[in-house]
Amino acid sequence: MEDYGRFLALLASTLLVGFLSVILSLVWVFHYREGLSWDGSPGEFNWHPVLIITGFVFIQGIAIIVYRLPWTWKCSKLLMKFIHAGLNTIAMILAIVSMVAVFDFHNAKNIPNMYSLHSWIGLTAVIFYSLQLFLGFAVFLLPFAPVHLRVALMPIHVYSGLTIFATVIATALMGITEKLIFALKNPAYSASPPEATLVNCLGLLLVIFGSLILWMASRPHWKRPPAENAKILSPIGATPEGTEVESTMTNSSNVDKSDLRGNTEPARKQNIKFDEAGQRSTM
Amino acid sequence: MEDYGRFLALLASTLLVGFLSVILSLVWVFHYREGLSWDGSPGEFNWHPVLIITGFVFIQGIAIIVYRLPWTWKCSKLLMKFIHAGLNTIAMILAIVSMVAVFDFHNAKNIPNMYSLHSWIGLTAVIFYSLQLFLGFAVFLLPFAPVHLRVALMPIHVYSGLTIFATVIATALMGITEKLIFALKNPAYSASPPEATLVNCLGLLLVIFGSLILWMASRPHWKRPPAENAKILSPIGATPEGTEVESTMTNSSNVDKSDLRGNTEPARKQNIKFDEAGQRSTM
Repeated sequence: MEDYGRFLALLASTLLVGFLSVILSLVWVFHYREGLSWDGSPGEFNWHPVLIITGFVFIQGIAIIVYRLPWTWKCSKLLMKFIHAGLNTIAMILAIVSMVAVFDFHNAKNIPNMYSLHSWIGLTAVIFYSLQLFLGFAVFLLPFAPVHLRVALMPIHVYSGLTIFATVIATALMGITEKLIFALKNPAYSASPPEATLVNCLGLLLVIFGSLILWMASRPHWKRPPAENAKILSPIGATPEGTEVESTMTNSSNVDKSDLRGNTEPARKQNIKFDEAGQRSTM
Repeated sequence: MEDYGRFLALLASTLLVGFLSVILSLVWVFHYREGLSWDGSPGEFNWHPVLIITGFVFIQGIAIIVYRLPWTWKCSKLLMKFIHAGLNTIAMILAIVSMVAVFDFHNAKNIPNMYSLHSWIGLTAVIFYSLQLFLGFAVFLLPFAPVHLRVALMPIHVYSGLTIFATVIATALMGITEKLIFALKNPAYSASPPEATLVNCLGLLLVIFGSLILWMASRPHWKRPPAENAKILSPIGATPEGTEVESTMTNSSNVDKSDLRGNTEPARKQNIKFDEAGQRSTM
């Protein structure tokens, strides 16, 4: 891997910032708020920031870069896909539980649901995330989708994944803003009590975490290298496990170019198409 | 251009969403709020959302994709750089004026400055944006930077530009959330009065606008094609105007490959380096 040391340093920084975000969310709800419970009290609401930051931000971020970890490159692509899909499934479950906590709390306290921009964009993000997970599962994990469909959808999968991730972080920042304004009364948010400073720092950490993930995910030279046994031109619907074009996070420019160098004219045209598709997907 | 029709449709949608956002911000401040003034009243504050949405979101978005407009490809690269830098400078000036409006309003009303997460991240974004503009000007517009520095910095320039743009939109969403909570009292935000619905829709439009810009900016096949007269291997510090490696938004993978195919061993190594740098910069 090129720049292995720099990648490790960035990964360590990302993990540190991610862990610190989760810890700050716990300090927030346990030290400054009512802790965690499931009884319609503010303690139930508090699951919302903790689970969103743990699942929808931190675990989703790791799921995005999991193909980039060099020590996983000896593992089969299918195993890595299961890990990628599994982490995203865990993130989605935690996001849904965290939403149930808010609805439950709102209903117990007769607070209206779904009135804020935070809730509108947050729900939209969860819906798109579910769709992304379902389509990713159907197209890239199950063995039924033809190769040309995988090649065509990979750039969209990569773009959607990163855009949803960025949107989730933006939604978390709105949520933090809302909560601090509503919860801090005496002293108010504008008086900058310690809780406000701590949670503002949490918001900054989320932006840094997101920026680091996006940087690592968008460096083509840190992608998982093409598989030795990639057979990109095998019959449609019969791509072998481990074929790079099946990759969910690394994109289709990863397809092993040596396997693409057909000598016949139709093969050459096909290769150009794959090469173009690969270029398109370099988010 | 590949997919010319699709590009035009996306561009038209983006412009429509952008214009609609600016119009909604004007409807918001003129129909529901106190209009615009510069006298320390809420009318002065109202310049903030209007100028941020017009300048820091809409104009910055256009500046990001200006190299992608096919009818500009016959213009010189230097002219396009001036347009790119000019639009970004206008965006920065509007962002700074909009911040002055808020500080002025806060000081007139004895409201503390810089306490919210919105202000922390917003100020950080403005500082990074200024730095990006200064470095872009010094490295890519002025003729002094050596080619290898331009090639090395281009992926960072592209990544920073898109990340700052996304952060600006996230900050705008936080600002909208703050303002609706503070301004709507009877009926409150939670009662979903028409103003709340309108401004929530404005927030959604900003997310759609940002997503469209990011999609167009990250499709490699929509990049400005390499210049006919590109001389990538000319002596350091003497790159001709129009050389693709000078591109600020289109990235260095645009370097004209035909010019890179030197036959000598040092030229071949140099070419590999440029190719790699080009790959890296495909955000």
